[in-house]
Formats: sequence, C-alpha cells, structure tokens
Amino acid sequence: MSSSDIFIGEIIGTAVLILLGAGVVAAVVLKRSKAQGAGWVAIAFGWGFAVMTAVYIAGPMSGAHINPAVTLGIAITSGDWGNVPIYFAGQLIGAMLGAFLAWLTYYGQFKAHLEDPELVPPPLEEGLVDERSAPNAGPVLGIFSTGPEIRVYWQNLVTEIIATVVLVLAVLTMGLNDSGKGLGTLGGLIVAFVVVSIGFSLGGPTGYAINPARDLGPRIVHALVPMPNKGGSDWGYAWVPVVGPLIGAAIAAGIYNIAFA
Amino acid sequence: MSSSDIFIGEIIGTAVLILLGAGVVAAVVLKRSKAQGAGWVAIAFGWGFAVMTAVYIAGPMSGAHINPAVTLGIAITSGDWGNVPIYFAGQLIGAMLGAFLAWLTYYGQFKAHLEDPELVPPPLEEGLVDERSAPNAGPVLGIFSTGPEIRVYWQNLVTEIIATVVLVLAVLTMGLNDSGKGLGTLGGLIVAFVVVSIGFSLGGPTGYAINPARDLGPRIVHALVPMPNKGGSDWGYAWVPVVGPLIGAAIAAGIYNIAFA
Amino acid sequence: MSSSDIFIGEIIGTAVLILLGAGVVAAVVLKRSKAQGAGWVAIAFGWGFAVMTAVYIAGPMSGAHINPAVTLGIAITSGDWGNVPIYFAGQLIGAMLGAFLAWLTYYGQFKAHLEDPELVPPPLEEGLVDERSAPNAGPVLGIFSTGPEIRVYWQNLVTEIIATVVLVLAVLTMGLNDSGKGLGTLGGLIVAFVVVSIGFSLGGPTGYAINPARDLGPRIVHALVPMPNKGGSDWGYAWVPVVGPLIGAAIAAGIYNIAFA
Amino acid sequence: MSSSDIFIGEIIGTAVLILLGAGVVAAVVLKRSKAQGAGWVAIAFGWGFAVMTAVYIAGPMSGAHINPAVTLGIAITSGDWGNVPIYFAGQLIGAMLGAFLAWLTYYGQFKAHLEDPELVPPPLEEGLVDERSAPNAGPVLGIFSTGPEIRVYWQNLVTEIIATVVLVLAVLTMGLNDSGKGLGTLGGLIVAFVVVSIGFSLGGPTGYAINPARDLGPRIVHALVPMPNKGGSDWGYAWVPVVGPLIGAAIAAGIYNIAFA
Repeated sequence: MSSSDIFIGEIIGTAVLILLGAGVVAAVVLKRSKAQGAGWVAIAFGWGFAVMTAVYIAGPMSGAHINPAVTLGIAITSGDWGNVPIYFAGQLIGAMLGAFLAWLTYYGQFKAHLEDPELVPPPLEEGLVDERSAPNAGPVLGIFSTGPEIRVYWQNLVTEIIATVVLVLAVLTMGLNDSGKGLGTLGGLIVAFVVVSIGFSLGGPTGYAINPARDLGPRIVHALVPMPNKGGSDWGYAWVPVVGPLIGAAIAAGIYNIAFA
Repeated sequence: MSSSDIFIGEIIGTAVLILLGAGVVAAVVLKRSKAQGAGWVAIAFGWGFAVMTAVYIAGPMSGAHINPAVTLGIAITSGDWGNVPIYFAGQLIGAMLGAFLAWLTYYGQFKAHLEDPELVPPPLEEGLVDERSAPNAGPVLGIFSTGPEIRVYWQNLVTEIIATVVLVLAVLTMGLNDSGKGLGTLGGLIVAFVVVSIGFSLGGPTGYAINPARDLGPRIVHALVPMPNKGGSDWGYAWVPVVGPLIGAAIAAGIYNIAFA
Repeated sequence: MSSSDIFIGEIIGTAVLILLGAGVVAAVVLKRSKAQGAGWVAIAFGWGFAVMTAVYIAGPMSGAHINPAVTLGIAITSGDWGNVPIYFAGQLIGAMLGAFLAWLTYYGQFKAHLEDPELVPPPLEEGLVDERSAPNAGPVLGIFSTGPEIRVYWQNLVTEIIATVVLVLAVLTMGLNDSGKGLGTLGGLIVAFVVVSIGFSLGGPTGYAINPARDLGPRIVHALVPMPNKGGSDWGYAWVPVVGPLIGAAIAAGIYNIAFA
Repeated sequence: MSSSDIFIGEIIGTAVLILLGAGVVAAVVLKRSKAQGAGWVAIAFGWGFAVMTAVYIAGPMSGAHINPAVTLGIAITSGDWGNVPIYFAGQLIGAMLGAFLAWLTYYGQFKAHLEDPELVPPPLEEGLVDERSAPNAGPVLGIFSTGPEIRVYWQNLVTEIIATVVLVLAVLTMGLNDSGKGLGTLGGLIVAFVVVSIGFSLGGPTGYAINPARDLGPRIVHALVPMPNKGGSDWGYAWVPVVGPLIGAAIAAGIYNIAFA
C-alpha cells in the first residue's frame, strides 16, 4: 500500500466510521429523530456495523485500521513503524470529517433539540466548567465524544484500557484464524461483532471510546461547529479516551508477543 | 445475464425487498399486529434482512441491484449503460408489486388501524395538503413511503444524499474485498448489515429511502389501493427520496473513480 | 443419505428447532421467566437462530429440511418424491419431541403462569369453543402453536402463503449463489436470517407458522400434556398453518421452475 | 497443541468470555451504567458475542473450548482424555480472572449500586442463608453467577441439562458441516449464534449457565472480592450449574456417538 492510499483510505474509512457511529447516537438521543429511544441495543449494533461498513470500504485501500490503537498494536507486534504518522493523521482528519457529516445529517434534529428550553444549561460557576457542562449538554456532546457516568479518572482509564485490550487482541489474533481455512475477509464482520460485544459488555461506565481518533476528532468538531447552548466540550476528560486506548493497545500487543507469537 | 433475466430478476428481487421492508414497518406500526411497538431495532434489522433476502433470491438472475441508485453507481463506474432502463423498469414494477403484497399480507391490520376513530384525519384546508396529510395519516403512509420528521427539503435532501453515498460506496468497494480471499457471496450479508447500519445511524431524520424505487413504487400503490381515511400520498415530498439517492449515487461513483479505481 | 439418516436427522433437527422456537416464546411470555417482556425482537431472532442451530446440527445427516413446506418445494423442483413421507414423518415426530422438551424446560414457569388467577378462562359457551379458548389461554397456546390476531381465515391463509413463498423461494435459490464462490455452508446462516426477516416483516398477523410440522406437532403436544387451565388447542384454526405453507411452497416451486430453472 | 498453549489459551479465552459475559449483565443491571435497562436482547447477544470474541482470540492456541462441558463432550466422542485436566484448570482460572476484570471495569457502578439503600439486605434469619440472600443481592450476584427464577433443583437441573445438550451437540456436529464446503472458521460465528439462541430460548428459567467454569469461577470471585452488602454467594445452588452441564455434555456425546458418528 502506498502512503497516499493509506492516507486517503484512513480518511474515508474513519469518516464513514464516525458518520455512522455519531449518527446512531444522534438517532437514539435527539428529539424529532425517528429512532429516538431505541436504546443501547441500537447503539451497540450501530457502532459495530459502523466499524464493519468502514472496514469493507477502506480495507482494500489502507487495511482499515481506522483507530490509532489498532495502528499502535500492529506497529508494536510487527515492528514496522514507518506509516504510523500517516495512519494517525488520516484517522484524525477522517474522524473530524465524519463528525461534521453526522452533524449535517442531523442538522434539523440538533437545532430542534438545542432549542428545547429544558436543555439550556444554567450559568456555569467559574472553575467548574468541565464538571458542570458535561451533565448539562451531555446528550449532544455524547453524540460527538464519550464521557463517564461516574467521573473518577483512574476508574475510567482502567475501563478504557480493559476494553481496548479486548479489541486490539481480537484484531491481532484474527490473522491466526486464517490458516487456509477460509476466514478471508469474513474478518471484517467478526471484528464488527467484537465491537458490538465490547459495546454491550464494557460500554456501560464510559461509553467505550476504545479509539483515540474516534473521541478526539469529533470533540474538536463539537468545539468548532456553531450550535447555540451546546455547552462545553469537556476537555478535562479528553485525555482519558486518548491515553487509555493507547495503553490498552500496548498491553494487548505485549500479550500477543508473549503468548501468541 | 440476458435482458429478460435482468428484468424478471429485478422484479422478483425488488418485490421481495419491498414486501419485507414495507412489511416490517406495518408489523411495528399497525394495531392488531403481534409486533406492534417493537421499535426501531426491529425496523433497522427488518429492512436489512429484507435486502439480504432479496439479494440472495435475485442475485443469480440479475445481480440484484434492486435499487436505481445502485444501478446508477455501477453504470457510472463501469461505463456500461446498456441495461440501465431495464433495471429501472424492473425495480419500479417490483417495488409496486411488493407494496401490493405487503398490503395484502396486512389487509386485516390496515382495516383495523384505519377504522380506528383516532386516526381519521380532520378536513384538510386548501393549499396545505402535503403538510397536513403527512402527520394525520403518517403511520399508514409511512409503511409505504418515507417522510421527514422535520420538513425542510434541503436538509432532507442532504440527509438522503449522505446516506446513499455510504450505501453505494459500500456496494462499489465490496468487489475489492474479494481478491481471492473467500468473500464470495458473503457480500450479500455484508451489504445487508450496511443497510442495517444506515438504518440505525442515518435513518432518524427522513426514514432512509436511499432507493428511489423503494419510495416511489410503494407511494404509487398507496395512492391506488382502496383504503378509507388513508390520507394523501404526500406527493410534495416524493421528489426528495428520488433525487437525493441519485445524487448520492453519483457522488459515491465519483469518489470511487477518484480514490479507488 | 440413507432413509434412516433422513428420518433420524429430521427428528433431531426439528426437535431442536421447536425446542428453541417454542422456548423463545415461553421465555418472552411466561411469568417468572428472566426474559419476560423481551418482545418481538427476541422472538424474531430467537426463531431465526433456532432454525440456524437445527440446520447445522441436522444438515450433515438429512439436509435439515425440518419443514414439510421445504420438503415439498424441493420435491416439486427436483422431481424426486421418494423420501418425502420419511421427511414428513420425521418432521412431525421431531416437532412433537421438541415441544415436549420445551415444556419440560419451562415446567415451573408454565405452572406458575397457569396458576395465576388472571389466566383462568371463564366457562365456555357451547359451540364457541375455538373462538373463545384462543384469547383466554392464548399466551400459553401461543408457545406451542400460532394463532391469528384477526381471525379471518382467508386473510390468515393469504398471509401464511405469502410468507412461505418467501421462505421456500429463498431456500430453493440458495444453491444458485454457490457457483464456486464460496457460499458453502454459510447458507445455513443466510436461511436463518431469512427466517428472522420473515418474522420481523410478515409475522404480525398470524405469527408466521410457515411450516406445517412446526404448528401441528406442538399443537398435538399442547392437547396431550397435563396443564390445568390450559384452554383449548384451537383446532378450528389448525388447518390454516398446514394448508397455507403447503400452498406457498407449491407457488414458490412454480416460480422457481418458471423463472430460475 | 502443546500443553502450555492449551493452558494459556484456555485462561485467556475463558477470561475474555467471562469479562464480556459478566460485563453485559453488569451493563444492563447496575445503576449508573449507560446500558441499564437494555434488557434480555442485550444479554443474549452480549453473551453470544462474548463467546465469539473468546473463540477467535483463543481458538488458534487451544481450540477455545472455554467450557468444561465442551471439553467433556469432545473427550467422550474422541476418546482422548489426555489434556482434560489442563483444559479444566485453564478454564476455571480464566473464569476467575475474567470475573475479576469485569468487577474492575464496573468498579464504580458496583459501588454506586451497593451503596443504594434499597439494595441493602435485611438481616438474615439463621438457616435460610441461601434462600434469602439470593433475592436480596440477586442483581449483583447475577452478574457473577446464574440463579433460578423458581428454585426447584430437579427442574433447574433439567433445564441446564437440556440447554447444554443443544450447545454441545452443535459444537460436536459443527465439524460435519465442513466437508470441503468452506465453513472454515465461520464456525466460531455459528457457535456464537447458537449461544445467542440458547440465551433467547432456554435461558428464562435459570439464566443458562451451560458451562460449569462460567458459573463456578465467578461465584468464587464474588465470594472473595470486597463489596459491602453484596449478600451471600448462594452456594446451595452452585452444584446445579456444574452438574447439569456435565450431564448434558455426556448426553450430547452419546447422541453424537449413536446418531452421527
């Protein structure tokens, strides 16, 4: 794969991932959406199939990492770090593009939702910005980025680490299932269901970022797009879904190198 | 594939698609249906598996486009426009046949639902036909055709365009995943889950037509079948789910030609 | 396949089908079940995966028709009627065995449910047995056999015919997807999702028997097992889910012979 | 496969299984979880995809039995008992590790849930420990181990036996579907959906342990981890989900040896 294929493939793939991923949360959360109230089953399957769609679209171009944690895990286990910056850059740009497209898709619903007087946040006291803005504008910010139900950073970090270990270990071992037995590109579907699994099982505490680009890119877009009453972008939490998945990827790569390689 | 195989295959495939697709909305919406209230999870999976069933039935005969947007995308990227009119004709006829069969399947439920006094629409004021008829007879019309939650045509068009770009791009790139790795006819299942994904993630604002025949054919049937109190067929909106998906298909084909070919 | 393999395979396969299929309805309907209230999403997926499990268990032995309508469709299109009686016999015996096992699995729940005073049916007037017993003991009878939400026999028959045409046409055309492209035994999964699709989309009016053995076998068991207050077995309706699927299978075979062969 | 590969593979695989399996119950049950109230559909799919994820991760190392009942069924039908103790040991250790990781993932939610005054159990009368502690601390214990809705041991045993027969028979016959037709490692996905099927269909009465390690390992961890008000570990029931699945596995192996071999 050429560098430009990787770059473009990751932009397209991650954009599709976030368009569909942010989209399903918007569909379930926002007023005047036909899917409002469809609940966690919709969210877990929606994110999983978002991964699947992105993987089959971008896979032939870039391998469809669409996640810096996956890129890191593959780099550690393969020892090939050459294209890592290109992957990272494409993923972040793609995530921002996807969040923008999701915002466009639900433009009317965002407007209707934020004009609802119930959601207008009360004036913030100084020094409490992050802690207070998240609950107030949570439903809208939660479409873009993840946030914890119980805000204890070390606990949230542990949750993200554990969830990402499962994801990256599944991705790294996927190739081992392919020894001439016909797994082939079925792998994209299996990884999608792994993400559904993580969503159902490990998403309860923090909303399972398990992907630094998935969280950071849309958070930047949330900060940039013009929406009245949108509240803060909760930058105080932003490091957790970046650092946690990277640590988790490193642990998964370590387990792989010790036990499976 | 011969022209007659394409024509018959598209009729059968699109009829199965709409029978099952209109069917799941009827199942969830209509009174006296065992599935009433099953919600958006049922609708998203129901439409996805409708696509899957249609693809495996009609695939060997016509390739199972069952969607003019898919036919357009393939024609642009392949440069082969010869059978496009046959595909379009088969798709529209099939969609009408499928809507008629769905109406027959739920004949008793439609009757029970429309005889319910709550649903009898109040007299319409002149010049407000489209805007007023949709909310009044919405649940029944919504079984046949899509309609927006918030009626702003340019927004609805944007939503349909974005959703169709994802669908057609996934269909066009599916072949790239098949380089001797055994994807084979797994593709029908993957495309089905792409449609589930679009339903979960991008269906909230407009109900994701993403297919001109899927919307126009059943709308015609809605206008034709005898049902008391059925309300108008919302022809004022009818162009959006025809034009939007065709624009989306062209954009997807352009992305494919630039980035993937 | 030998006759005894067919016979035993169909008994085992249909028993697994009905154990899991009747089981999911029991799980959703009965008091004191952990899944009570899980709704139509559970039922549609539950029956689909019941088919899948049965197909992969019995497929290598008998081809896993597990449905007289499938056997009939295959006999018409292949012209081979030799083993049809063996298939039918195995399917009916298997369906009865499966219903008995489901009753055993939920023995405590059936007891708890039927001892609930709300469900004790009022005395029946003479000559109205079928019509009155169904609503009263419906939840329990509905675990064993199907019944219509709106009892109009020709409508119920039409619904069962249409739904079975989709099923049998999908089964008959499945082989056409396999021309060296690797569908292989993926077919069992696809057929399972076809059944999920029919459940979501066409199950609302009658509960989608689409299988004479699936309905008749458990209905016989319902009549035989000792349960106080269980109500009648609604024999007046019993012909519909036998005749409808057989007509549907014949129509599907005709479509296949004309359009696909 | 070497003994150490089996041992490590089973530890990792069973740990992933229980992390994700206990995780989904925690996600659905505990206060302050984003998935609270997602219901039985989430639980059935969550456990199924937990199996899938574990099978693809550990399969290449140990074959991914991750269940003593599966190991027993394979030992009986193959006659090879050599590695059985290693499998059992790895499975129990892995189940304990997974339960501990699930507890860590939901640490904050467990704390929030158990500090809720509604859940503090009333003082236990002597001699009624098991019977009374289960209902009081049920939601939390139910994350770790299974328990019956109606406590009648022979009925609970029958339910676990029947459910395990389906699982182990499906696992044993899976290989028969693979005669050069391309099932390949699709088998991991099929088995996952078999587990979803059992969850939907046979899980209502006892919560479908169908795996001695899945129940016993987490129960031990429940007894060990420090949680105020956690209640008893219901040791009076603990033998049922150990003995039932082992009997079921033996019956499934017998059916396989008689009918399929």
